Amino acid sequence: MKPVFFTMPGNDGFASQLRSYLPAETGVMDMHHFPDGESCPRFMTSVAGRDVVLACALERPDGKIMALYLAGCVARELGARSVGFVIPYLPYMRQDARFMEEEGVTSAHFARLISSCCDWLVTVDPHLHRHRELSEIYSVPSRVVHAAPELAKWITGNVQLPFIIGPDAESEQWVAAVANAVGCPYTVLQKKRRGDREVEVSVPLVADWEGRTPVLMDDIVSTARTMVAAVKQINAAGMAPPVCIAVHPLFAGDGYIALQVAGVDRIVSCNTILHSSNRIDMAKPTAVAVADLLRARS
Amino acid sequence: MKPVFFTMPGNDGFASQLRSYLPAETGVMDMHHFPDGESCPRFMTSVAGRDVVLACALERPDGKIMALYLAGCVARELGARSVGFVIPYLPYMRQDARFMEEEGVTSAHFARLISSCCDWLVTVDPHLHRHRELSEIYSVPSRVVHAAPELAKWITGNVQLPFIIGPDAESEQWVAAVANAVGCPYTVLQKKRRGDREVEVSVPLVADWEGRTPVLMDDIVSTARTMVAAVKQINAAGMAPPVCIAVHPLFAGDGYIALQVAGVDRIVSCNTILHSSNRIDMAKPTAVAVADLLRARS
Repeated sequence: MKPVFFTMPGNDGFASQLRSYLPAETGVMDMHHFPDGESCPRFMTSVAGRDVVLACALERPDGKIMALYLAGCVARELGARSVGFVIPYLPYMRQDARFMEEEGVTSAHFARLISSCCDWLVTVDPHLHRHRELSEIYSVPSRVVHAAPELAKWITGNVQLPFIIGPDAESEQWVAAVANAVGCPYTVLQKKRRGDREVEVSVPLVADWEGRTPVLMDDIVSTARTMVAAVKQINAAGMAPPVCIAVHPLFAGDGYIALQVAGVDRIVSCNTILHSSNRIDMAKPTAVAVADLLRARS
Repeated sequence: MKPVFFTMPGNDGFASQLRSYLPAETGVMDMHHFPDGESCPRFMTSVAGRDVVLACALERPDGKIMALYLAGCVARELGARSVGFVIPYLPYMRQDARFMEEEGVTSAHFARLISSCCDWLVTVDPHLHRHRELSEIYSVPSRVVHAAPELAKWITGNVQLPFIIGPDAESEQWVAAVANAVGCPYTVLQKKRRGDREVEVSVPLVADWEGRTPVLMDDIVSTARTMVAAVKQINAAGMAPPVCIAVHPLFAGDGYIALQVAGVDRIVSCNTILHSSNRIDMAKPTAVAVADLLRARS
């Protein structure tokens, strides 16, 4: 029997694109909420004996996690053969160490919770820094969809003579991959973070930037303080106004507005998180990864 | 070393009373929220090697569960000897069966989640109906604090010649216990539920109601539709305006207002959920249960 595909509330754009590319039946689930605020997923399409694919928007996750957890558990209770989560933006990946002695590694606790209610996981470019593989903290099998090829395609099609600038030293490999695919030079910012919202950066000088358009890239753009600081440096150095690209456009607080007024050429993003800046589709490569994973499991 | 007591956000009234009765040190936890909405509990008071007690208001649970889950996990990660949750109102207990074939038994899934992040649990009168004991679904040890003695004390002190009316046949044992402690007659409603919000009830006739004040009791009052219907029946039968008592005053939507205007004498509740109708303290008997459980474990 074909897999059956359900969409959790949120990011319907990504979900409906994903569904259109997947060889799956579209299922109907009603996320019922009782008057007292408790959730009760109702699978109107039968899941018994079937592979279930759940598309889950999980940015700002705390208000969404209970419904997702219950959906995974109930699909299993109703006899699903397997339950897979497609989480285009995987949250909680940045708390990957005990930065203060009174804190915990919440990335690992979040991973354990997700792993308790699904059988596999597909996500786009998770923030892998101190954790080098999802399997270090996720006990279920996972596939990572890389944004780099899509970013390179978009830059090639939309920016003349680009010059790519990555967010930090750890991102160098990723930035180099995009730059090589585009065939352009790159550098990475030197960065000093001060608390959640304050950051100091400098753009290292490179030889051949003149006449080129700077393209600032980051995996997660939240408060956008890093990018805003980089834009200011770029402007001060007399370069052209930069194109800014976010894989995951979280844009917390006034992040998007602050970046818009900082002196940029354009702000574009992947559609892993619904945002007006979405220009780069990740649903198609995600569908390929999901179909591949389902084939490998069957 | 003495246990250390922390309060999750919500129902500070119950929590501070509970703390005042407990032989525990008051700990400081900061529930930090990053700009992107992710939570990061910070235990400013060390928990290493200690028994941790977390007071958790969990009515309208979906927005609160992530922070609680992380607090339990991080306390363990930081070396707590044990982590106990005091949850005055235990949610998700009413979905204790698959009422429609497309639904699941979410009470059991919720129980598994809570059991994954604590070592013990204390709660006040959970809604035990199809589940007869918490241990059927909770894998961690639990203690149940009964409201009946406190209800009986309040009725004895505040209602002359009461006549107690329970919500349904299943509650008869509970209602009888309160009535026996007060020394007054009782009956239970005959009830037919139609959907989440609609309910039809009738008050069975009893011989000696004349001259008595009806006291309507229920464990959970959410939309209050059952109680409102009962109040109307009582008024129509020519009885005195009833006193209404809720153990857990959820009061979803316009429930409280609907009950206020239905023709009641007074509405009172236990303080398991913060509400203006709180008159009956459950923090003291809860503290006794927690202290007893900690002694038994040490």
